[in-house]
Amino acid sequence: MERLRVVMSIQSGCSKCGKPAVYLRRYTSEYLCGTCLVQTTIDRVRKTINRHKMLTDNDRIAVAISGGKDSAVLLHILYTIESAYPNSEIVPVTIDEGIQGYRDEALESARALSRSLDLTLEVLSFKELLGYSLDGIVKRRSSNALGACSYCGVFRRRALNIAAKNIGADVIATGHNLDDEAQTIFMNILRGDSARIARTNVPRELSVDGFVPRIKPITEISERDVVAYAHYLKLPYHDFPCPYAEEAYRNDVRSFLNEMEYRRPGTLLATLRSGESMTMAYRQAPTTWEFTNCEKCNTPSPSKICKVCELLESIRS
Amino acid sequence: MERLRVVMSIQSGCSKCGKPAVYLRRYTSEYLCGTCLVQTTIDRVRKTINRHKMLTDNDRIAVAISGGKDSAVLLHILYTIESAYPNSEIVPVTIDEGIQGYRDEALESARALSRSLDLTLEVLSFKELLGYSLDGIVKRRSSNALGACSYCGVFRRRALNIAAKNIGADVIATGHNLDDEAQTIFMNILRGDSARIARTNVPRELSVDGFVPRIKPITEISERDVVAYAHYLKLPYHDFPCPYAEEAYRNDVRSFLNEMEYRRPGTLLATLRSGESMTMAYRQAPTTWEFTNCEKCNTPSPSKICKVCELLESIRS
Repeated sequence: MERLRVVMSIQSGCSKCGKPAVYLRRYTSEYLCGTCLVQTTIDRVRKTINRHKMLTDNDRIAVAISGGKDSAVLLHILYTIESAYPNSEIVPVTIDEGIQGYRDEALESARALSRSLDLTLEVLSFKELLGYSLDGIVKRRSSNALGACSYCGVFRRRALNIAAKNIGADVIATGHNLDDEAQTIFMNILRGDSARIARTNVPRELSVDGFVPRIKPITEISERDVVAYAHYLKLPYHDFPCPYAEEAYRNDVRSFLNEMEYRRPGTLLATLRSGESMTMAYRQAPTTWEFTNCEKCNTPSPSKICKVCELLESIRS
Repeated sequence: MERLRVVMSIQSGCSKCGKPAVYLRRYTSEYLCGTCLVQTTIDRVRKTINRHKMLTDNDRIAVAISGGKDSAVLLHILYTIESAYPNSEIVPVTIDEGIQGYRDEALESARALSRSLDLTLEVLSFKELLGYSLDGIVKRRSSNALGACSYCGVFRRRALNIAAKNIGADVIATGHNLDDEAQTIFMNILRGDSARIARTNVPRELSVDGFVPRIKPITEISERDVVAYAHYLKLPYHDFPCPYAEEAYRNDVRSFLNEMEYRRPGTLLATLRSGESMTMAYRQAPTTWEFTNCEKCNTPSPSKICKVCELLESIRS
């Protein structure tokens, strides 16, 4: 925790403007004042968006908001960047999985943040969409069933796609940060599933028909930068872990990567670049990953019955 | 160290033959007696060789021997496997870098092992080949020069190629084990150089003209298995670290991977499979990695002056 602590009492001046610095961005060795911390973070996200051609000038952008810090920062940055594009539109969207004492509280943060930016939060719940809340699914599943996260991940993805279609969004932006991405790359490799790295990083123009394209604008912003940004601007966010979280694997990888980044600043970004390079290589290699339509719900799916219908069936039976 | 300790007092019977077991191979959950430990290890290497078409029936195989445990086990296994192929030949080769108090002692182990198999060890020294021992290079390099390992790695690779050519070898076998390979995959990714994973795993048939093809037959054998094999057969080996070793980076990655393998046996092998998959993807993607001949020594090289000549120049000047 010491390492993620936002440094708010640095003796040096800001490397950009000379004013008193409040933050040391370790991997660029920059001491930053609050204003330059915010500005350089926004500039970095703008570069990521341009480099990967994530947005056009007149997009309706569904921004997936959980109520947590990453999506709070994502929404604030996109709101700031898109204010220069009068034909674009930002619509914050929250998927309410139905987790009592957790998502309901996070939802309040999401609403407060949206309100502060004069945006209206769209909410779609598992209950409305599937007939079950996540709490309900957990109660119904058999004793040897999958963990809660397995259901939640599949259903949340689908819910987000439907919510985005409902509001006519051209694209869905999610708040995966640099740490998340580097962890995911390593987890896939440790599981022997490196090809998944390419499958979870599909560029907008190659998005499968029937799915609203997904973009991850803050993948070059470290978690530490995210915390500093949110802290400096006092963005409202909810900072408690999900009661169902089964993150042992990710936590192991996170500790290791945090340690490596601490000893050799720039490691997370180098890992992201490796992931991009692998994605390019896999994309050019022949793929056997083809889509059909699910026989039950007609959504594009790599198998005859999509994962959502397969899991729903297992809950109902 | 506790985890790498060879378990020599297990109460269970061997999973293969029922005799008293002396070793638990964790990632296959097999209790093994000494005989079955040796046999299953050899079988696994045979499979690796066949799967990657590493050898033909009548190869002269230069086996790179350092005097350490990995190459001792490699030599013993290849010797055993190749005894079924009367037209093949095994020639153990050691590169003597000239590191007093280290390589000279390891060389004794290499000689003892070769003698026990009735093989003659070929030795080629840096001093003969380049005019300098590694001890001499370290003394000559300027204060802001590269670390000793950077010189040693480049020169050893070249020396091994020349030694193999001298003895008319068709192929060079090296003793990289599963742990080494998994560590290398991670180190390349953490450095943002994932494409190197493909470049260091060139299959025999794609080897560049002018280089003797290199194979790594024990990449599916974990370090723990290597130690158990060498220990059970009482193979002579030298087990002290090189005095120049600058292994901080690799040690960090090793600790993490050992921990992950301990918690989730099979992680190292899954990482190796990821590396193979990435190698295939990069190989199918267009490459800009082309060879010319070094202007000084005429060896194939991706640059006008090869790395060996570049480093030699820096020592001489």
